[in-house]
Amino acid sequence: MSNEAELIERIKSFVHGSADDVILGIGDDAAIIRKNDQQWWLLTTDSQIENVHYRREYIPPRMLGHKALAVNLSDIAAMGGVPRFALLSLNMPGDMESSLVDEALAGMMALADQYAVVLIGGDIAASVSGLTMTMAIIGECPAGRALRRDGARPGDLIFVTGRLGLSFVGFRLLQHGYRYAPDLPIDLQQPILAHLQPTPRLEIGRMLAERQLAHALTDISDGLSTDLFHICQASRVGAVVYADDVPTIKQLPEEANITALDAALNGGEDYELLFTVNRGHLSEIESLRTLFNNLPITLIGEITDEPGNIYLEQAGERLPLIPRGYDHLRP
Amino acid sequence: MSNEAELIERIKSFVHGSADDVILGIGDDAAIIRKNDQQWWLLTTDSQIENVHYRREYIPPRMLGHKALAVNLSDIAAMGGVPRFALLSLNMPGDMESSLVDEALAGMMALADQYAVVLIGGDIAASVSGLTMTMAIIGECPAGRALRRDGARPGDLIFVTGRLGLSFVGFRLLQHGYRYAPDLPIDLQQPILAHLQPTPRLEIGRMLAERQLAHALTDISDGLSTDLFHICQASRVGAVVYADDVPTIKQLPEEANITALDAALNGGEDYELLFTVNRGHLSEIESLRTLFNNLPITLIGEITDEPGNIYLEQAGERLPLIPRGYDHLRP
Repeated sequence: MSNEAELIERIKSFVHGSADDVILGIGDDAAIIRKNDQQWWLLTTDSQIENVHYRREYIPPRMLGHKALAVNLSDIAAMGGVPRFALLSLNMPGDMESSLVDEALAGMMALADQYAVVLIGGDIAASVSGLTMTMAIIGECPAGRALRRDGARPGDLIFVTGRLGLSFVGFRLLQHGYRYAPDLPIDLQQPILAHLQPTPRLEIGRMLAERQLAHALTDISDGLSTDLFHICQASRVGAVVYADDVPTIKQLPEEANITALDAALNGGEDYELLFTVNRGHLSEIESLRTLFNNLPITLIGEITDEPGNIYLEQAGERLPLIPRGYDHLRP
Repeated sequence: MSNEAELIERIKSFVHGSADDVILGIGDDAAIIRKNDQQWWLLTTDSQIENVHYRREYIPPRMLGHKALAVNLSDIAAMGGVPRFALLSLNMPGDMESSLVDEALAGMMALADQYAVVLIGGDIAASVSGLTMTMAIIGECPAGRALRRDGARPGDLIFVTGRLGLSFVGFRLLQHGYRYAPDLPIDLQQPILAHLQPTPRLEIGRMLAERQLAHALTDISDGLSTDLFHICQASRVGAVVYADDVPTIKQLPEEANITALDAALNGGEDYELLFTVNRGHLSEIESLRTLFNNLPITLIGEITDEPGNIYLEQAGERLPLIPRGYDHLRP
């Protein structure tokens, strides 16, 4: 098995037929099903697997529960949707302490309540390798308004929310023995929290969809280089990213052992949004900036009409931007 | 963590609030969401985890793929619904052979095609403990027609489909070193296939719902004793099961090391249907028997007005029928 993209293509090759009410199947942040003439459903699933996605010594159970839901909500944000219902598949050793599970559920439900997401069902099974939480989310959006990966057009401007690379730097700090604590200095606290307790960008995703401001939208789960590659591939376009404009970490802790730009391009798990916008909408994006005044919305590049060519421009030089984000199946 | 039922209650205690379009939340074979005035959605999730639900040396990959979907379709059958869409969460080691995954997908998609189920999305992640396939299924049924566990009424007759205990005996045969092969003698072949390649009872489940023949319906995934307990608990009723009427295995292989009745009551994984019917509908059930002429539909007992009292009547004696079916969290 060489990589995730190949496996997804192989899975698609096994799927025959569709149905009238399937608007979008395998390959985007979420699938789209027609609910009625006014509404579409969005469907997605994502897991937190012990010793794959997380280590128990790194993450307090409450944050783990939050994150298990947040990574799924991020996929709904990445379609411009509103999350509605959740299923939870809980795989755990029979001797797991009740308090750990309670804390994880409390963290998950605090986030669910924040967005009025209702846990409607799930499944419980034993585990031979720690605690896995797999969730499936049903979201919705007005019919015709979902923002897919395949809508980018040459000339579009490329934006990202937030500051990229924080989560990866947080992960490195955890590897170096730092742990979350309320009194950590801000330059350690911020990346660690970004990694352990990501914020799904639901409000801005929804606004981009409802106001029809973006042509293409995805979340940055694998890393900017890989997620931009996904948009370009799906939309059959190219892109240029201006290195100096990428919002990177200002105070990089020494332990990160990576440049701020590398962390931003290839770190992954930022769960920020990446979207492309018609130049004519620049002023509306400016007004969004005012609305979301704690969340940077940064212009980082533009879409070109050269499919397959994605460049990073730095000091006047253009070099290919290779997708080096996370791939679960890479050896 | 003492058992699944307790954990489900604890999870429910963490869920605050609901939504107007949630018809039924946690606790049945599937959740119910209102799609529109004519249709309801049914949502469920279930997993096949290596070395928890299955052993790779017991099950050919094609049958594993079939089973991963079948156990989910059985939950839709258990609501009287029609399955429509599926999400697949695939957790696998990076070095897993492509041929194994291909075979599993082929088996899964053969069953999906049979019922026009469309795989619309999913997720891929690495695994540190073999291959896990978690699926979420979206099904539908006419509004108001879903068959829940909580509808049984005193005086109802209790029916089961199929012959119970086959799957557990098949599992025992696999433990004893038997393997599936097309030329096995029928008394070994039948239980092994029942275990490895269960048939979701979608047609009869749907018919029970559409013709409004059943008051309560569930599938026998944990074992008759436990699944009947679920119906009685949800419906606040009691039950009597007539031991001599339970459809058990006729030719029990010696290696099973269990009585045919014990396997039928407590074996689990039969994925047959268990339902309760108003006595007035007895003739309609007879006509279903003609329609499904290869599938036994057997009257095994009746519902009583004594909540909490579930008995097994054998040789004129009534003994409590304790739920001894499978519990993932039992030490």
